[in-house]
Amino acid sequence: MTLKPSMIYVMGNTFGSLFKISTWGESHGGGVGVVIDGCPSLLSLNEDDIQRDLDRRRPGQSKITTQRDESDTAEILSGVFEGKTLGTPIAILVRNEDAKPDAYNHLKDVYRPSHADFTYDAKYGIRNWQGGGRSSARETIGRVAAGAVARVLLSESTDIEVLAWVSQIHNIKADVRAENVNFDEIESEITRCPDRDASEEMTSAITEARKNGDSLGGIVTCLVRGAPVGLGTPVFDRIEADLAKAMLSLPASKGFDIGSGFSSVEMTGSEHNDEFKAGDSMPVTTSNHSGGVQGGITNGSEILFRVAFKPTATISTPQETVDNSNNPVTLEAKGRHDPCVLPRAVPMVEAMTLLVLADHWLRNKSARIPSK
Amino acid sequence: MTLKPSMIYVMGNTFGSLFKISTWGESHGGGVGVVIDGCPSLLSLNEDDIQRDLDRRRPGQSKITTQRDESDTAEILSGVFEGKTLGTPIAILVRNEDAKPDAYNHLKDVYRPSHADFTYDAKYGIRNWQGGGRSSARETIGRVAAGAVARVLLSESTDIEVLAWVSQIHNIKADVRAENVNFDEIESEITRCPDRDASEEMTSAITEARKNGDSLGGIVTCLVRGAPVGLGTPVFDRIEADLAKAMLSLPASKGFDIGSGFSSVEMTGSEHNDEFKAGDSMPVTTSNHSGGVQGGITNGSEILFRVAFKPTATISTPQETVDNSNNPVTLEAKGRHDPCVLPRAVPMVEAMTLLVLADHWLRNKSARIPSK
Amino acid sequence: MTLKPSMIYVMGNTFGSLFKISTWGESHGGGVGVVIDGCPSLLSLNEDDIQRDLDRRRPGQSKITTQRDESDTAEILSGVFEGKTLGTPIAILVRNEDAKPDAYNHLKDVYRPSHADFTYDAKYGIRNWQGGGRSSARETIGRVAAGAVARVLLSESTDIEVLAWVSQIHNIKADVRAENVNFDEIESEITRCPDRDASEEMTSAITEARKNGDSLGGIVTCLVRGAPVGLGTPVFDRIEADLAKAMLSLPASKGFDIGSGFSSVEMTGSEHNDEFKAGDSMPVTTSNHSGGVQGGITNGSEILFRVAFKPTATISTPQETVDNSNNPVTLEAKGRHDPCVLPRAVPMVEAMTLLVLADHWLRNKSARIPSK
Amino acid sequence: MTLKPSMIYVMGNTFGSLFKISTWGESHGGGVGVVIDGCPSLLSLNEDDIQRDLDRRRPGQSKITTQRDESDTAEILSGVFEGKTLGTPIAILVRNEDAKPDAYNHLKDVYRPSHADFTYDAKYGIRNWQGGGRSSARETIGRVAAGAVARVLLSESTDIEVLAWVSQIHNIKADVRAENVNFDEIESEITRCPDRDASEEMTSAITEARKNGDSLGGIVTCLVRGAPVGLGTPVFDRIEADLAKAMLSLPASKGFDIGSGFSSVEMTGSEHNDEFKAGDSMPVTTSNHSGGVQGGITNGSEILFRVAFKPTATISTPQETVDNSNNPVTLEAKGRHDPCVLPRAVPMVEAMTLLVLADHWLRNKSARIPSK
Repeated sequence: MTLKPSMIYVMGNTFGSLFKISTWGESHGGGVGVVIDGCPSLLSLNEDDIQRDLDRRRPGQSKITTQRDESDTAEILSGVFEGKTLGTPIAILVRNEDAKPDAYNHLKDVYRPSHADFTYDAKYGIRNWQGGGRSSARETIGRVAAGAVARVLLSESTDIEVLAWVSQIHNIKADVRAENVNFDEIESEITRCPDRDASEEMTSAITEARKNGDSLGGIVTCLVRGAPVGLGTPVFDRIEADLAKAMLSLPASKGFDIGSGFSSVEMTGSEHNDEFKAGDSMPVTTSNHSGGVQGGITNGSEILFRVAFKPTATISTPQETVDNSNNPVTLEAKGRHDPCVLPRAVPMVEAMTLLVLADHWLRNKSARIPSK
Repeated sequence: MTLKPSMIYVMGNTFGSLFKISTWGESHGGGVGVVIDGCPSLLSLNEDDIQRDLDRRRPGQSKITTQRDESDTAEILSGVFEGKTLGTPIAILVRNEDAKPDAYNHLKDVYRPSHADFTYDAKYGIRNWQGGGRSSARETIGRVAAGAVARVLLSESTDIEVLAWVSQIHNIKADVRAENVNFDEIESEITRCPDRDASEEMTSAITEARKNGDSLGGIVTCLVRGAPVGLGTPVFDRIEADLAKAMLSLPASKGFDIGSGFSSVEMTGSEHNDEFKAGDSMPVTTSNHSGGVQGGITNGSEILFRVAFKPTATISTPQETVDNSNNPVTLEAKGRHDPCVLPRAVPMVEAMTLLVLADHWLRNKSARIPSK
Repeated sequence: MTLKPSMIYVMGNTFGSLFKISTWGESHGGGVGVVIDGCPSLLSLNEDDIQRDLDRRRPGQSKITTQRDESDTAEILSGVFEGKTLGTPIAILVRNEDAKPDAYNHLKDVYRPSHADFTYDAKYGIRNWQGGGRSSARETIGRVAAGAVARVLLSESTDIEVLAWVSQIHNIKADVRAENVNFDEIESEITRCPDRDASEEMTSAITEARKNGDSLGGIVTCLVRGAPVGLGTPVFDRIEADLAKAMLSLPASKGFDIGSGFSSVEMTGSEHNDEFKAGDSMPVTTSNHSGGVQGGITNGSEILFRVAFKPTATISTPQETVDNSNNPVTLEAKGRHDPCVLPRAVPMVEAMTLLVLADHWLRNKSARIPSK
Repeated sequence: MTLKPSMIYVMGNTFGSLFKISTWGESHGGGVGVVIDGCPSLLSLNEDDIQRDLDRRRPGQSKITTQRDESDTAEILSGVFEGKTLGTPIAILVRNEDAKPDAYNHLKDVYRPSHADFTYDAKYGIRNWQGGGRSSARETIGRVAAGAVARVLLSESTDIEVLAWVSQIHNIKADVRAENVNFDEIESEITRCPDRDASEEMTSAITEARKNGDSLGGIVTCLVRGAPVGLGTPVFDRIEADLAKAMLSLPASKGFDIGSGFSSVEMTGSEHNDEFKAGDSMPVTTSNHSGGVQGGITNGSEILFRVAFKPTATISTPQETVDNSNNPVTLEAKGRHDPCVLPRAVPMVEAMTLLVLADHWLRNKSARIPSK
């Protein structure tokens, strides 16, 4: 089996058109980071703004995440002067640390099931086997750092608030009312599920899965309050299309729906349509099956969507697989990993949502603030 | 209520990076069309290749679609010489016809529920009220025409086959085995559901909905056979991310999932992981919860995904809404429309899938053909 | 000699980032055209606005241009409703006419010197030999049409005025003072050189060249009045960089310089620097060697640049060349062509300048109007 | 005078479409760098490859450059594993050092003539006054580092050789025959002019200018040997158009021409046309007024072009200007600067040329190697 690498693979490391980010870095090597191009000048920005979200994403933050301990400290290399953005590219660097490349020695030639090892070798003819390369969750550090900058932009210029939470783990479904949910409730739970009872069940389930060397999936729900009317464009770059791409670009995600989503298929048009009534200064809908978007463009209602995550591919039970000579081997994974990515996926979903909104906000500066 | 239009809205009318298409045109006006930039030279291409897919998309094709009758005849304006592509932009034009602008007079100032009328006015300060503008299903003519060209490219250079079908309408679920489904079975049903019994039920349900002035939603399932290993990139431009964007950019779509999708959340890692075994020339998986993609890159298995469509927003029963002066009005829609978009959505889903694959195929020419 | 075509050639048919145009069409085939994506809504636009510039570009307009007679009538296919732009893509079509493909029969297998016949065959493995394909001057119809739309945008929202004229043909140099030049003087001369004496000499020289079956080159100078401060970005997308690309993308252009240009190399810094003095509301320079741009960004002074055009490659005197089997042949060109492209190049230079400015205007809406 | 910053300025920090680079960093702050996205995998690359070109660009390398002493040491942060490229983004960091921000205190509020201080303030409402910000020559470190990677790509896969040299400083013109020039001769002169006599004169002139607190401009000529046939595209992304943009994006450049360039305007078509003769395996031209490009596409001949650079804007003689309150001031610049940028501009011109060629090489992989 010879794998011929490609000379041509157009870059897929950039996201956004006006608030544009490019992430770089492998899980092992000098570090990971991001360049943000298109951030307006004169925003107040410092490293704490970024560190806050990185801390919510970092490993080792609770008993139900991986025990790998990395501080993931962000350094702003450019684009900020005396606490203000310059309007020039903002480069952010997070050094790799706690790398134990030896821990990966047994994986050098082996293709882990449902990982990207095989497809990388097939595509590139080489991979950094001392970790997941670009498919490592560490790549999302750049996204979360950039999302924190997007949050600053949106906070200074809009009323947009983005909140994500865990609404399901395995078969445990939370009971959460979007209109009441708030950041503190979410963050007070290590699961990031604001339904305390469900959260306890989820914690037990995750702990149990870890003990069994197994892993669990779940659903993150995301809510956007305060989005102005007029974000998004009618054809390809609809808000829901850009959100769908953003979410399916996250590691381990398998599905996305918005508003009524998959449940819309069993409704009729007369049940599903969101009728308008006169609002204070513009029309408002009396229901929100649309999930805040009509014709790809925000209508002033809350945006609400869900993201499905599969169970983590890294498990400790023995699995049948092959090596890079196409010979069968049995793999027993070692090392530290998350038995369930959901709690740490929450800041990632928020970051990608903030990036989509910041981009469309810049793409349509005159979008109106909805009447309240 | 004054709606201030934006001077700045970055174009959202282009899709793809190497096999790049730009659609243009409103439902009323000179016509609709597409420019394809990046199609290789020396492919055999003529108007019949395009017309075949346009005919599957056009209105009036059966008793369960809209009775609007438009032939939607494609003219290739450039990029083809003596039956071969030149490697230059391929421009395709379909003239508008059977436009009855008077039929829209009563909608001039009214915001139809769950349509884009309000959001357009809010964003642009103007809209072509003689139809749905860019949000009209007519916009998809350009996509389907471009998808037909992508199909020619992929047919000449790969074994890729893309098949979509209706797998659910309202609460009627088809029983279809992906490994057996074929084009003729799908096309022999006016619903484009290859399960004949379900198809008959669906036909009745759609007919009933039309009689009631109501509408129905459903699910399209799409299968890709023969995709080579190595398509897609690891971070933002994952195959599933680009497919998700493509699908959520279709009118009336509300959700997307791939492989195990939303059902993955109730599985454990040990159930969900796709183990490898040695194939003839490269590893193959023994299950396909991944849906043919690992780390964003095709692994040689079949790609399988679902798209949820809401019930058509245009219904004939009276609805409460407001006009563009924010005054309440009752709307009774007239005109001809689809009581269920699903049958005509099938060629749209195929077209968008073909466009994503053609783009990634050009982005990674050395991708390997999987062992069979 | 076998020429293997490429499967991969990234599209080079799009220009601009926010005011983005894509041209398409060969000189022979259905027609040529352009899609403009990113034009704001609510501008007043009709076909006359476009036709005016197309008429300045069209063949057969005077005794010193090609005698080919094409009316080049523009049809707006989309993006305009009741005389206003919709904010959606504006597609413009110009049908080909007066095509005499037989006139090209003798060129089917022959590579004309200093034309693109050979390089096309080498790159694409095919070419539309019934004319110049995408390298035909007809391709510029789409640019000029789009430039006319850019002119409308800039007229409605800025004081920008773009004026180009012929400043040299062969060794005949015009004496023109940029501060005095105006549109009517330029257009009153068939050469588009506003120095009447030079214009007469140029007319004689062109007439003489045509009689000899030969051709002449020259220089177009372009002036931008009223450009606001702040257009352009500091690194790659400097105004002068984008103008240079725009100009070198025109057929037959060989050079570009701005402000002091090539003559700056023999000046010292103390001679060349443009000192500032206090203007009414902001600094103004006391000289303009910079040509209106500093650090890639407009400073409120006039932008002034030059474009060099080589003599037309199509001549009627016999030339030695080879055919597509690499065998020597003697070519005696027939057909109708311009003995000097300069007069018709003027609207092309203007169009490309307008496109660069419209793009940067949208990229920096807050750019300030300079004090006068 | 209040300067309102823009919220919207589309990023101009990225260059290339397939071999795509994004530079970031100010002259003062954490550092400068570049992310290269699109570099193929399996190339041999290490920091020495990059350092070699950075050393040719760095200040303090000879008595005629600025005496600022910075080692400009490159660190590869990602994209390389065990000496091979991974096909993932290559991030390169160069820390700032020897920054003496106090040296800029007197410039905090003053607009230096022919610098970007005023236009930055007008555009962004803020600037890093401790140096030139993004307009500092330090920004070109990222370009030169990326150019070094492009050189590795082109060396491994083509016969392309890029050579630039100083052909004129002020009124001293070198006598250099492109067919004979070689790298060692160029590098053996501190002026990077391979005509030793002219080089000595130039050195004296530069030394004299420095003594007078003045500065000089000049011309860099660039030659590309071994370019395959077929690079470039016919319309906007012509090779000469992309080179023109690349060159005019360099600090202090004022003009570009290719092949016969500005001198073509005084030639006739019969003098200027490059006739073809039969070569070994494909046609070759008997002259090269085209400069290696026809119809925007390389024809296998050498590419030859010139870039004009103005005299350095930083001089030590007193200049009249204004401050950021629009009040007149007299500026006496202090600090260390280049009296003539030409010697250090040579590696910058090479880098930008390599970037253009690498991009088009990836855009057209089947381009043919010319017969020799």
